[in-house]
Amino acid sequence: MSRSILNFGAGPAMLPEAIMLQAQSELLDWQATGKSVMEIGHRTDDFKSIAEHAEQSLRDILNIPDDYHVLFLAAGATQQFSVIPMNLLQGKTSADYLHTGIWSAKAMQLAKRYCDINVVCSSEQSNFTTISDANDWQLAAKAAYVHYTDNETIGGLEFHSVPEVGTVPLVSDMTSSILSKPIDVSRFGLIFAAAQKNIGPAGMTVVIVHKELLGDVLPFTPDLFDYRLQAKEKSMMNTPPTFNWYMAGLMFDWVKQQGGVTELEKLNQRKSSLLYDFIDASSFYKNNIDAACRSRMNVVFSLIDENLTDDFLKLAESNGLHALKGHRLAGGMRASLYNAMPESGVEQLVDFMREFERTQC
Amino acid sequence: MSRSILNFGAGPAMLPEAIMLQAQSELLDWQATGKSVMEIGHRTDDFKSIAEHAEQSLRDILNIPDDYHVLFLAAGATQQFSVIPMNLLQGKTSADYLHTGIWSAKAMQLAKRYCDINVVCSSEQSNFTTISDANDWQLAAKAAYVHYTDNETIGGLEFHSVPEVGTVPLVSDMTSSILSKPIDVSRFGLIFAAAQKNIGPAGMTVVIVHKELLGDVLPFTPDLFDYRLQAKEKSMMNTPPTFNWYMAGLMFDWVKQQGGVTELEKLNQRKSSLLYDFIDASSFYKNNIDAACRSRMNVVFSLIDENLTDDFLKLAESNGLHALKGHRLAGGMRASLYNAMPESGVEQLVDFMREFERTQC
Repeated sequence: MSRSILNFGAGPAMLPEAIMLQAQSELLDWQATGKSVMEIGHRTDDFKSIAEHAEQSLRDILNIPDDYHVLFLAAGATQQFSVIPMNLLQGKTSADYLHTGIWSAKAMQLAKRYCDINVVCSSEQSNFTTISDANDWQLAAKAAYVHYTDNETIGGLEFHSVPEVGTVPLVSDMTSSILSKPIDVSRFGLIFAAAQKNIGPAGMTVVIVHKELLGDVLPFTPDLFDYRLQAKEKSMMNTPPTFNWYMAGLMFDWVKQQGGVTELEKLNQRKSSLLYDFIDASSFYKNNIDAACRSRMNVVFSLIDENLTDDFLKLAESNGLHALKGHRLAGGMRASLYNAMPESGVEQLVDFMREFERTQC
Repeated sequence: MSRSILNFGAGPAMLPEAIMLQAQSELLDWQATGKSVMEIGHRTDDFKSIAEHAEQSLRDILNIPDDYHVLFLAAGATQQFSVIPMNLLQGKTSADYLHTGIWSAKAMQLAKRYCDINVVCSSEQSNFTTISDANDWQLAAKAAYVHYTDNETIGGLEFHSVPEVGTVPLVSDMTSSILSKPIDVSRFGLIFAAAQKNIGPAGMTVVIVHKELLGDVLPFTPDLFDYRLQAKEKSMMNTPPTFNWYMAGLMFDWVKQQGGVTELEKLNQRKSSLLYDFIDASSFYKNNIDAACRSRMNVVFSLIDENLTDDFLKLAESNGLHALKGHRLAGGMRASLYNAMPESGVEQLVDFMREFERTQC
C-alpha cells in the first residue's frame, strides 16, 4: 500500500511526508558525517547543533519569552502528571484541577499521591460534553497551581481560550493541541506536550516552564525529574532521546514553512469546521459536544444507528481511511486532524461519510 | 562522507548497517500499511506484533525463563537507578552496591535517597583499574538486593563472570554489555540495559526482572515506575517509545543472524584482544586496567606522551576513525567496540595506531 492512505489515528499519529522523506534520505548519513543521527553522541557538537536548533525554532514559533526554560525530556506526558507536583508544590499542599475528561482524570489520579486535589470544575455531569461556565469554578487561592487539559484527545473537548485563573500559575497539558494554534506563553506557568501528536515520534515530552516557578522539589524526587537540574544541564543530565529530538526539529522547521501556528490555526479551523458542519447537517451522524468547546484536533462522532459502526469502520478502511475507530474507552468514531492531516484528507472523509449514508438509506 | 567511516563512539553508538537500511527502506511504509512505524498507534494489532516479536526474540537470544518479565520502558538507565530501589526494597532499608566506576557511583548516589547503601567493594583505591577479590567483599545479608555495573562504559572495567553474592537478588546494569555475550538470566533478580549501545536508538531501557521479586512499591512511586503495573499492561500503561521498540526488534533479529550471543562473544573477544594485545606490546600506548577485568566493549587507552593526544585524535578523525576521544571525566582515548563494530574496523584502528607511532618515533 502507498502513503495515499489517510491516517486518522490519535497518536502516535501521522507525520508530514516532507519530514519523513528528509529523515529517510539522511537516515544513514546525516549532513555528510557518515553517521545516522541515531549514532551520534549526545555531547558532540553535531548533536548540540541539532538540539539547539530545535529549541530555537520552537521558541520562534511560539514566541517563548526568555524567562521560560524549554526542556526536551524522555518519556511521555503521563510521567509529567507525577513530575509536575514534585516540582511545583513548593511547600504548598494542594493543587487545582479542571476536570474535563479522561486525561484530566488521569492527571488528578497521579498527582493526588503528592497533594490534595481541588476539583475546580467537572464536566462529569454533562457526560463530558461541555465545560462549565468560568463563573461557577471553585478556584482555591492556596493552590500551588491550576492544571487543565487543553484538548481532551479521547473525549474531543478543547478549550477555545485560555482559562482565567487569576494569579495562581496555570499548567496546561497541550499534548494534542500544541502547534495547532498560537498561544500566549506568558499566561502560563508551565506547558507540557508529549511528542506523538503534533511534534514527532513517541518517547519525548516538551516542557515549557517559567524559571521563577522552580525551587526545591519534593524530597524523594529522582534528580532526572528536577526541572531546575534538567534546565541547568540543557535536558542532558543523561542521554536524551536524540532521534526524537531531531525529528522534533524537522517538525518545527516544517511548521515555520507552513506559515507558523497562525496559518495552521486557520487550516485546522477549516478542517474541523468542514467535518463538524457536515455532521451537524446530518441526521445520520452525531456529535454531542457543545460547539463552544469542540476539539479542532480530535473530532469524535457516532452513527445514530450504532449497529452500523463496524460496517462504517470496515468500509472506511477499505477506502483508505484508516484508524477512525474511537478510543476503547469512548467507542464510536474519532477523526484526528493534527497539523499533518491535509484539508483534502478531511474532504475525502466527508465524501466517504456522505456516500456511506447514501448507501444505507 | 559515506558510511565507510568507523564510529567508535560510546553511545548513542553505531548500529549495524543492515538494520539501518531496513529501517530506511520501510520508514514511510511499514509492511505495506501505508504508514511509518512512527505513525502507528501503540494499541493496534500492527504495533502489538512488532512489540511481541521483539520481546520473543530477546527471550530467545538470552534464554529468558518464563518467570521473568521483559519490559520495554521509556527513558534511559539513569531513571532506573531510582526506579529499582522503589520496586525492590520491599520493606528492607538497605541495598548492597559494588563500586567499580562512574556508573556505579551514579547508581548509588540516586538510590541513597531511598535506602542505606552498603558499599560491598570499591575500586577507588586502585583508581578503578581492578575489581577487588570477592573474598574481601562485605556483603550484607539484610540487603534488599546487590547492584553492580557489568561494564563501566567510561572506565573500561568489565566483570568477566557473574559476581557470587549468595541468595540476595542480584541486579545488573548491562547497558553497555547486553547482547555481547551469553548470560545465565536465572542467576539475576533484575537486569537492565538502556538501548543506545547494543540495542538501538536512545530513549528506551529494557528491564528483565524475576516476577517473584515484585510487590508493593515505595508509597510515593509514580504508577509508571511500578514494574508490576507495567508488566500487567505489557509496558503500555501509556504510549511507549514505539520506534525505539521496533528498532530493538530489528537489532534482535540481526543478533540471531550473527549466530546469537555465543558467536558475538567470540567476535567481541577477538576484537578487544587484537587491540589490547597491540597496546600491551607497545611502549607508546598504555592501558592500566587489570587484564582480568578489561572491558570487551570499551577499550580505554592513552599515549605515554599525553601531549600527542590531540594530534592523535585529529589525525584519526581525518583517517575516518571517529569519536575516539575518551569521556570528558576520563580523558585519553576510548574505542567502543559494540556488536556493530566489525573486526576489520579494529584492524584499521590498530593499523592507524601503529602508523601513528611510527611517524612520531
